[in-house]
Amino acid sequence: MPTISNRGSRMPSSPIRKLAPLAVAAKEKGVKIYHLNIGQPDLPTPQQALDRIKALDRTTLEYSPSQGFKSLRERLAGYYDRFGIHLSPDEIIVTTGGSEAVLFAFMACLNPGDQIIVPEPAYANYMAFAVSAGAVIKTVTSRIENGFALPSVEEIEAQITDRTKGILICNPNNPTGYLYTPQEMEDIRRIVLKHDLFLFSDEVYREFDFSDRPYVSAMHLKKLEKHVVLIDSVSKRYSECGIRIGAIVTRNRELRDIIMKFCQARLSPPLLGQIVAEASIDGTETYTQQVFEEYKSRRDFFMQELNAIPGVFSPIPQGAFYTVASLPVEDAEDFCRWCLTDFVYRDADTPQGCTGETVMMAPAAGFYSTPGMGQNQVRLAYVLCKEDLGRALLILRRALEVYRG
Amino acid sequence: MPTISNRGSRMPSSPIRKLAPLAVAAKEKGVKIYHLNIGQPDLPTPQQALDRIKALDRTTLEYSPSQGFKSLRERLAGYYDRFGIHLSPDEIIVTTGGSEAVLFAFMACLNPGDQIIVPEPAYANYMAFAVSAGAVIKTVTSRIENGFALPSVEEIEAQITDRTKGILICNPNNPTGYLYTPQEMEDIRRIVLKHDLFLFSDEVYREFDFSDRPYVSAMHLKKLEKHVVLIDSVSKRYSECGIRIGAIVTRNRELRDIIMKFCQARLSPPLLGQIVAEASIDGTETYTQQVFEEYKSRRDFFMQELNAIPGVFSPIPQGAFYTVASLPVEDAEDFCRWCLTDFVYRDADTPQGCTGETVMMAPAAGFYSTPGMGQNQVRLAYVLCKEDLGRALLILRRALEVYRG
Repeated sequence: MPTISNRGSRMPSSPIRKLAPLAVAAKEKGVKIYHLNIGQPDLPTPQQALDRIKALDRTTLEYSPSQGFKSLRERLAGYYDRFGIHLSPDEIIVTTGGSEAVLFAFMACLNPGDQIIVPEPAYANYMAFAVSAGAVIKTVTSRIENGFALPSVEEIEAQITDRTKGILICNPNNPTGYLYTPQEMEDIRRIVLKHDLFLFSDEVYREFDFSDRPYVSAMHLKKLEKHVVLIDSVSKRYSECGIRIGAIVTRNRELRDIIMKFCQARLSPPLLGQIVAEASIDGTETYTQQVFEEYKSRRDFFMQELNAIPGVFSPIPQGAFYTVASLPVEDAEDFCRWCLTDFVYRDADTPQGCTGETVMMAPAAGFYSTPGMGQNQVRLAYVLCKEDLGRALLILRRALEVYRG
Repeated sequence: MPTISNRGSRMPSSPIRKLAPLAVAAKEKGVKIYHLNIGQPDLPTPQQALDRIKALDRTTLEYSPSQGFKSLRERLAGYYDRFGIHLSPDEIIVTTGGSEAVLFAFMACLNPGDQIIVPEPAYANYMAFAVSAGAVIKTVTSRIENGFALPSVEEIEAQITDRTKGILICNPNNPTGYLYTPQEMEDIRRIVLKHDLFLFSDEVYREFDFSDRPYVSAMHLKKLEKHVVLIDSVSKRYSECGIRIGAIVTRNRELRDIIMKFCQARLSPPLLGQIVAEASIDGTETYTQQVFEEYKSRRDFFMQELNAIPGVFSPIPQGAFYTVASLPVEDAEDFCRWCLTDFVYRDADTPQGCTGETVMMAPAAGFYSTPGMGQNQVRLAYVLCKEDLGRALLILRRALEVYRG
């Protein structure tokens, strides 16, 4: 047979999928699994968005414009206005999820061999899109003992070479929930300007900012009009990950022209998803407020209970709906695996029909590029109702006791 | 500002978009344009597919599986069965349109610098996806005087180097409407096997085969289980280009595993599109038959009227809904441009409220890589009702008379 591209072997294995077959096997044995491993929000999509799609009055589901419907881009511009980010609809390009926004940003900005700097732990798929574009990710390590703060300017600058073309941040952060401070954003601004880099800013969790300061977007940073490439998505904020609608936003017109070539090649973003996204932005203040309060209250509850487990430590996340915790185990991946294969919990509250219960977590080592980092860490997503979160942590506490003998 | 990737400058300009600004300007002057330039079917999407989406009973539009819903893949397997292509649902990967299928096929099979051979004229976006993957397209020219038949085995083999990794065909062909004969498919099979190449076969127009022989898919070719990568899409056959649902199909399991890494990185194909696609496949025999007959009857009418225009020649296409015609002009692009800027037609039948009428065509040179080829050719799509097609050809006839003085 013909040989396959060697890109395949460089594609990362997803840390959240690695244990999936074990979960399937556990479910087949009747075990109920509390999924703390995935970032699939459990909350409903806004009702008016579901209603809009049910009232569809088109007879031909034809191509939409490659840049996305103008009406959607106008709504998005209005949405960004609320965050003090003032854009024309022309500066917004609708993409097939935030995923395509990352891919096109890399394709348009990076030549094969070009490097970008990414704080780790980081969303594993950035690596996949870098491999697709032939680019190289160099990581700077943010540390749990510092609450996953941005590594120092010196550490970041130490990674800069003549092939460095950009810095990528995810803010609020997946997987850590860390929210960059105004001072850190200013540090990033200076580095970007000094070394003439692109700043890729993935802000898909913008809505989930639990701090009491105003959100600082990369789009707020002065003099970076040509440098900032904002990655966005409606997936998380309206609980509609499946519709695959994101956006790539930049004030750099020359760059937009190049990105549009990639957009035109794939013809158009999903038509039906755009209808849902547009309806979601219309009049969702109540929805947004409710969702925010739900996640904030979950975070408060979850972090308190999590850190009360002996030997467990997790810095309080200021954003998103994830946290990274260190566990009192040597090898968190082994422990996560064991929870699915060798452990079940049962008590009087175990639901009828289940043979037992367990928890599924994402081993955090898969979010680091530096070998050996995050060995005793897991990423946890609090996208379950509080009752289930409480139950999951009770089970985690007991699992740690049993595992450690 | 940071320098942009040089991929951008290598991305092709779409031959169907080049004249778009002129069309906008003409419309603003009140001119009615008959669009023979784009492959957007005018026919309705199947009613049961529209009904299915209107009956949506989900409350959270969550991620779907990266490979696509199993129920959709089962329906697709049933669909291929009708063409004598027997597949398990596991051999089918649902993609975000045929576009993503091409991109992922190239990403998974081709290393930067690898070459593939493509008969020209060819769908311009193949080049865009090759640029994205860093691969090189080498074309072999099919000629209008041979009805756009496959170039000879010798011509194809003359392009093979030690970097050649595959052959790509589009069958039935966009832009020519050519349908490869069983003998040509056998020639391709032998070349692929002899040189151990991938065979990328874009068969999104499979439904529109106006010949009286059974359709020969690349999937029918013997001993090519490891070589054939089928590119498919529901866009054209169910007139639902906007939902962005395609598929990549291969019996090569190792290759599927690599393709799935790219699928996992982009998380999932569009949820709502999958619901529409699945409903479209359910019970559409009447729909399919009606659509087929409509296009066949349009083709018969269109080709007869087109070839009746003095100096115009176009071989009768056996498939798809396009044809490439040579016009009695030196520079078809100039003529297409002139039709939008300098020419309007008016007679007693010109609709009220229009200042006049004209036609928009795609200059065919943009579908060739070889400089100078196709200079006097245009691609025409017959995706208008017969009345409009007739009117468009009347206007084209008159435009040629005026243009040629």
